[in-house]
Amino acid sequence: MSKFWSASVKRLTPYVPGEQPKLANLVKLNTNENPYAPSPRALAALQAEIGAGLRLYPDPNSEHLRAVIADHFGFSADHVFVGNGSDEVLALVFQALLKHEKPVLFPDITYSFYPVYCGLYEVPHKTVPLTDAFEINVDDYAQPNGGIIFPNPNAPTGRLLALGEIERLLQANADSVVVLDEAYIDFGGDSAVPLVKKYPQLLVVQTFSKSRSLAGLRVGYALGHPDLIVALTRVKDSFNSYPLDRLAQAGAAAAMQDRDYFETTRRRVIATREKLVADLAALGFHTLPSGANFIFTRHATRDGAELTTALRDRSIIIRHFKTPARIAPYLRISIGTDEQSEILIAALREILG
Amino acid sequence: MSKFWSASVKRLTPYVPGEQPKLANLVKLNTNENPYAPSPRALAALQAEIGAGLRLYPDPNSEHLRAVIADHFGFSADHVFVGNGSDEVLALVFQALLKHEKPVLFPDITYSFYPVYCGLYEVPHKTVPLTDAFEINVDDYAQPNGGIIFPNPNAPTGRLLALGEIERLLQANADSVVVLDEAYIDFGGDSAVPLVKKYPQLLVVQTFSKSRSLAGLRVGYALGHPDLIVALTRVKDSFNSYPLDRLAQAGAAAAMQDRDYFETTRRRVIATREKLVADLAALGFHTLPSGANFIFTRHATRDGAELTTALRDRSIIIRHFKTPARIAPYLRISIGTDEQSEILIAALREILG
Repeated sequence: MSKFWSASVKRLTPYVPGEQPKLANLVKLNTNENPYAPSPRALAALQAEIGAGLRLYPDPNSEHLRAVIADHFGFSADHVFVGNGSDEVLALVFQALLKHEKPVLFPDITYSFYPVYCGLYEVPHKTVPLTDAFEINVDDYAQPNGGIIFPNPNAPTGRLLALGEIERLLQANADSVVVLDEAYIDFGGDSAVPLVKKYPQLLVVQTFSKSRSLAGLRVGYALGHPDLIVALTRVKDSFNSYPLDRLAQAGAAAAMQDRDYFETTRRRVIATREKLVADLAALGFHTLPSGANFIFTRHATRDGAELTTALRDRSIIIRHFKTPARIAPYLRISIGTDEQSEILIAALREILG
Repeated sequence: MSKFWSASVKRLTPYVPGEQPKLANLVKLNTNENPYAPSPRALAALQAEIGAGLRLYPDPNSEHLRAVIADHFGFSADHVFVGNGSDEVLALVFQALLKHEKPVLFPDITYSFYPVYCGLYEVPHKTVPLTDAFEINVDDYAQPNGGIIFPNPNAPTGRLLALGEIERLLQANADSVVVLDEAYIDFGGDSAVPLVKKYPQLLVVQTFSKSRSLAGLRVGYALGHPDLIVALTRVKDSFNSYPLDRLAQAGAAAAMQDRDYFETTRRRVIATREKLVADLAALGFHTLPSGANFIFTRHATRDGAELTTALRDRSIIIRHFKTPARIAPYLRISIGTDEQSEILIAALREILG
């Protein structure tokens, strides 16, 4: 701490991302990255962008990329906002759309960056407990609020909320913004994007980091009514005119245009997940139903922290959350390749004796 | 405006960057880009980074890049902060280090993003007039303040403040943070970076966009005492864990390591500037002394807005600021190649008749 710090800096509790170890030969199943390479079309677009043109500023409005995203989902570009990863998009959402006198609501067990944003931007918030089965019950959100946000599927549980329930939530909340963080929706869920045309208070946030294998490129986006997009744009233009570099804009646009590759790789991840869940069940694990590229699973008798350490000793990295207490028995395991699943299962068999 | 907007969004006056026209065959001298391509070593490093590895998150702490920057300036990496362009770095500086009860001070004529950041983060501020010769007089800053920030050389004037004056300012301001925005320092000024070791309240911000020809890649950095760097890091980790993508980290590190290319191209820009100033003088222009890769110049009899429009009609884009009134007669012209200078001079000769 230092006399030079702004008062708010002292109060912050920063987010801690999953580690990015620099060891080789690791089975890295801790940060929900896609095991498959980005689309060859995305890589070619990146190659094409490398040259003298990098001396010039990028398009501050990312117009081409926004047009490609809009086209993909059947919207006009004024329904699309893009940012430097969906984390940046979410941060601007908290600043621009969720800061009101009434508290923003989100689940007690969810993406742990939400309360951090609230701390940074001084957004009043209130957590709503998941059910005993780790589900979101939309009736629990029938209370005064300045907005609602949750991931669907939720993290780190992987549980999916059905579109009918989301529509029921929207009908009960016409006067505050409802943000669906769909980082993982392509691995088994129905996206709420089509509902954007019907509900002006709905904002859907997605990312290129998971289903499009571009975590290293940092591109996220939001789809919503132009009134919501204008608010995000005003904050963005008061913060950083050029959040997406030339390479990110070009690579992301090409990735989105490669629908075949996207379909092939996401189906492969889903198939690996289903096989892994079955193999874990045979070892005594209970896994929550997952619509994501990760699973949340607990062993019948063995402790979550202990299993995490034992796997780490075998160069397999997964994620474990110590708090809150009711998720401490669980392991969050990202879905890798079938081969990585086999290594994981073999290690667990050995650990469980 | 919409009922869904946070209250602060309604009050914002966003920054307006220089335009990035999509026309071909333009002589683009409006946003202070470097006329030379990035270092071939930077381009090679970018090429090497394109591949399957992009499926993985980047290093959230940019450790390699920070080590390279630290090494370049003779510091340890705990003195270095990096961000998504120096605009992002500056935004975090306003949040983390310049928001206090007393106002932050900056010149009345300066980078127009500063008051925008103050609006976004609700930072009290007060402007200090430049002298009649458009100079910063450090004695004018001898007043209660919660921090001081200005570019050196200043923008859009190009005028440089001598290092002795900066040291005098630091001696008079031991209790508040002094931020020097050295975006343009490599085009003729003495950097204050060596003073960082002596003054714990000094933060120096630089960028890869100008002297390293990488405006399209979005990388900026700050050098200062570790206490200041920790504050910036806390805010960054409460906002966006991964502000720099894998390509930006790799390309910027390689660019900084290519000292020869940097020296060659910056000297070339300086030489072109000196010739352009002389050629403009012959046409009746008075140019302020510039330490930057742009000049601020006015004609003896002709209006700034009129000349800007006449140049635009000839596909030459420069920047003109209508306010405040005392800079309205001036043109801000980025330094391009010698050939671009010749085209500009020929056009002005024609316009001036």
